[in-house]
Amino acid sequence: MRRLESEDLDPLTLGATVLGCGGGGDPFIAKLMVGQAIADHGPITIADLDDLPDDAQLATVAVIGAPTVIIEKIPSGSEFADAVRALAAYLGRPIDAVMPAEVGGMNTLIPLAVAAELGVPCVDADGMRRAFPQIEMTTFTLSGLSATPMSLADEKGNRVAFETTSNQMAEKLVRGSVIMLGLANAIALYPMTVKQAKEAAIAGSMAYCTELGATLRAVQRHESDWDDLLAFTDGRVVFEGKIIDLDRRTTTGFARGTVTIEDFADPTKVMRIEIQNELLLAIEDGRPVVTPPDLICMLDHETAEPITTETLAYGQRVRVLAMPCAPEWHKPGMLDVVGPSAFGYDVEYTPLVPAAGE
Amino acid sequence: MRRLESEDLDPLTLGATVLGCGGGGDPFIAKLMVGQAIADHGPITIADLDDLPDDAQLATVAVIGAPTVIIEKIPSGSEFADAVRALAAYLGRPIDAVMPAEVGGMNTLIPLAVAAELGVPCVDADGMRRAFPQIEMTTFTLSGLSATPMSLADEKGNRVAFETTSNQMAEKLVRGSVIMLGLANAIALYPMTVKQAKEAAIAGSMAYCTELGATLRAVQRHESDWDDLLAFTDGRVVFEGKIIDLDRRTTTGFARGTVTIEDFADPTKVMRIEIQNELLLAIEDGRPVVTPPDLICMLDHETAEPITTETLAYGQRVRVLAMPCAPEWHKPGMLDVVGPSAFGYDVEYTPLVPAAGE
Repeated sequence: MRRLESEDLDPLTLGATVLGCGGGGDPFIAKLMVGQAIADHGPITIADLDDLPDDAQLATVAVIGAPTVIIEKIPSGSEFADAVRALAAYLGRPIDAVMPAEVGGMNTLIPLAVAAELGVPCVDADGMRRAFPQIEMTTFTLSGLSATPMSLADEKGNRVAFETTSNQMAEKLVRGSVIMLGLANAIALYPMTVKQAKEAAIAGSMAYCTELGATLRAVQRHESDWDDLLAFTDGRVVFEGKIIDLDRRTTTGFARGTVTIEDFADPTKVMRIEIQNELLLAIEDGRPVVTPPDLICMLDHETAEPITTETLAYGQRVRVLAMPCAPEWHKPGMLDVVGPSAFGYDVEYTPLVPAAGE
Repeated sequence: MRRLESEDLDPLTLGATVLGCGGGGDPFIAKLMVGQAIADHGPITIADLDDLPDDAQLATVAVIGAPTVIIEKIPSGSEFADAVRALAAYLGRPIDAVMPAEVGGMNTLIPLAVAAELGVPCVDADGMRRAFPQIEMTTFTLSGLSATPMSLADEKGNRVAFETTSNQMAEKLVRGSVIMLGLANAIALYPMTVKQAKEAAIAGSMAYCTELGATLRAVQRHESDWDDLLAFTDGRVVFEGKIIDLDRRTTTGFARGTVTIEDFADPTKVMRIEIQNELLLAIEDGRPVVTPPDLICMLDHETAEPITTETLAYGQRVRVLAMPCAPEWHKPGMLDVVGPSAFGYDVEYTPLVPAAGE
């Protein structure tokens, strides 16, 4: 166990923005929540899975909705702890530690604020090591764990508890409620024991995220260069250009859209990136270049500041960074859960870094 | 307490079709469920509120969805008892008796089947004494009772529990889930004590429904005439003609539409009836003739068989019967809960039978 050091908060937030892949809400709002939670409730304890007994009860906690709405309707805070308390009541046992469902976007930081409020540790592990738009898109699903019982809470005191026959159905049902409750709510889900998490979770996601953020901050400050970032992430720059078209809509509970980028030097070279909360699929000349679950992050070409989809703008000069997904994803069934077809894209998965045997 | 006699089932079902106001699903499907439940579990006990101790725990149980879907996706049966069991588990106490939320449509009979399956009495009372499309449209709401905790179940084993800050929000949230679960599901809601029901419910709705059905059956068999039916219901025939236009759509979780009827003798006389699951508002020459919460029932002109909205057809010859709502509705706040504006109609409530003081 270790204490979350205040100097870790900045690189963690920056890393979370990169792993947010343009979605996952604005981590800087969540960073303010964490700061407030520490001020109100004291320091936050980070635990590795090995720090906790195998039968300890974990649950993930997250904001759910459309990032376009979440940045306008800032969470009040108490609904997250309420969602965890409601889940504990439903299960009939206390939650011993919370865990991020996704390390990427504001859901990286929200569990830290909840950990402070509830006085429990936050586990350094998650189910994505990036942001994904749907709750069933986790390595937990891949390992056969249920997302339910799941509880949903809003800031007004409305509560919903779900028990479903599949994680896909859990996603459909909670999405229906979130649409009715204003597209920015708190959920507590994936109740599991530490023993189950050791099988199913991606351990060390938060430490990875912090180091990624620190590396990018060094690049921004010219204390380090792009090659260090690419080496750390196994990533590569797949495009550099300016945004020439942007189509955005908030529909069926998601922020969807398409962004088109034109090469600086060669106007015949164009990359199109499809958005469903996150930047999901990059296509150049009709050829898929980056496919889910691999990561796409767009950074400002001058400042190397990651750009979230809701702040994309015509004329922005950007660098498109592609990174391979966490190796824990490479298990049988991955493509069913988070491959291109899981998002309705009729393309083949083209791994950035082919795993052994693929 | 009394046993539900098998000879009561036919008039109860016919009465429920009339009080269904064209909506509420097809009571004949529910009648089959009741017959099966009696065969499987034995006779059904009907209780008046006075038969039960004041602190006995009641809950209403119903099918929710769009009638157009419910008649195609026949309930399997077990989901209704499952919804009640899930509510009991959520409350942490057993349900001592079930009650219809609405006496009108198939929700009149479903609680009888559930009573048989759970081995508890069914209370002769409800919250509407007609069918309404939304769950907050009850005299329970008018009396300040909460529709939640409420549980929703489908036939596949999915479960949702709701606790909301208002009955309007409960309706919105459960509708969101029902849209995701296929528009025909089981709910258990309005948990209340017998003492609360004595204040808030419409007592004797089922007996009223049975007598209404018996009276109409006598009319159909020419053993009685229309005046007896009108005298029993305080109703009047507001139009006779044939259907010349029909516009139907299933949208936002409801079966909506408009039906237009032309007078047999005078083609310049036209009545337009607005549908939202039920026949809700009758307009002639731009003037509202029947407004909610008063009842509209359309009957076949020759057979006097009530017609549900999903079986309306071009060219049908119909008689439009209007009946005043149950007197229990006439309390302060009625129009907010079930007046024309509650359905989005910009017309004044025009009572068929003005209540004292109105």
